[in-house]
Amino acid sequence: MSTGPDRDELLLRLRRVEGQVRGIARMVDEQAYCIDVLTQVSAASRALQSVALALLDQHLRHCLSQVAQVGGELHEEKVHEASAAIARLVRS
Amino acid sequence: MSTGPDRDELLLRLRRVEGQVRGIARMVDEQAYCIDVLTQVSAASRALQSVALALLDQHLRHCLSQVAQVGGELHEEKVHEASAAIARLVRS
Amino acid sequence: MSTGPDRDELLLRLRRVEGQVRGIARMVDEQAYCIDVLTQVSAASRALQSVALALLDQHLRHCLSQVAQVGGELHEEKVHEASAAIARLVRS
Amino acid sequence: MSTGPDRDELLLRLRRVEGQVRGIARMVDEQAYCIDVLTQVSAASRALQSVALALLDQHLRHCLSQVAQVGGELHEEKVHEASAAIARLVRS
Repeated sequence: MSTGPDRDELLLRLRRVEGQVRGIARMVDEQAYCIDVLTQVSAASRALQSVALALLDQHLRHCLSQVAQVGGELHEEKVHEASAAIARLVRS
Repeated sequence: MSTGPDRDELLLRLRRVEGQVRGIARMVDEQAYCIDVLTQVSAASRALQSVALALLDQHLRHCLSQVAQVGGELHEEKVHEASAAIARLVRS
Repeated sequence: MSTGPDRDELLLRLRRVEGQVRGIARMVDEQAYCIDVLTQVSAASRALQSVALALLDQHLRHCLSQVAQVGGELHEEKVHEASAAIARLVRS
Repeated sequence: MSTGPDRDELLLRLRRVEGQVRGIARMVDEQAYCIDVLTQVSAASRALQSVALALLDQHLRHCLSQVAQVGGELHEEKVHEASAAIARLVRS
């Protein structure tokens, strides 16, 4: 995992998603109109997805820089791991 | 929006999603391994999606029962609204 | 399933998706650059998804008009069926 | 793009997707039941998605092996490209 500004940015985004989910619960509790609730659920899903894409981008960057430093090894396992994570994401 | 047990069930699920998102923030904060964080993000996305599907199911049920009671009117607008919500969901 | 112009429109869109998939196969065969192939795959997926959303919209319209005509019956099974189809779509 | 068995496998899968899309058009043409058509659309989407994931896996493998050979350079552009392709895929 990254440190510094990237991490702070991610944490901020996650706090916002947490707030969105709490807002959705409030809407359900107050019997808001279903379609409006669904709109907020879609927005929270998209926000969560964009956190995932930022994490993945950082991870790929980190993997490539490691490979470039260490060289040689193909890190077969790393690619397998990243591909599996992408598959879970695409299918979630 | 529904009342009673369905709503309580939805609220319970949303509290759980909120907890998942908080857990993801904690992982990011503690610099957990990126792929593990991504796995949790996928799980939270799936949980949120299943809340959306439950909401949509309730909404369709409600629409049909209204149409059955009131009759006649096609509630063109309702279908449009539901279709748009499904589209946002599928694309989110 | 609908008849007439809606159906013709859907058939046209499906022919186009078929052409897109054939184009992707050609790109793979000619060893096109992977990222370019992926861009085309995303475009074909989106096109297929929009066919699904159009089908679903027609279906909901049809269900509501049937309920409005026949009245009374809640068509519980129909809602269940539609919800299951939406879930498959959202998860695909 | 890969050559040899991987490519043949991808081409086979794409031919199958093409056949699925043609089958969906036939169902629409013969006015098959909407929910059955939707089930086939979801299956074709999933098949297309799994082609995309296979392509992405090959691409990441290729990128890492290039970086390992050439070393040093971070191929910043490559990561950006891959991340953008993953984002399109996740959002499609």
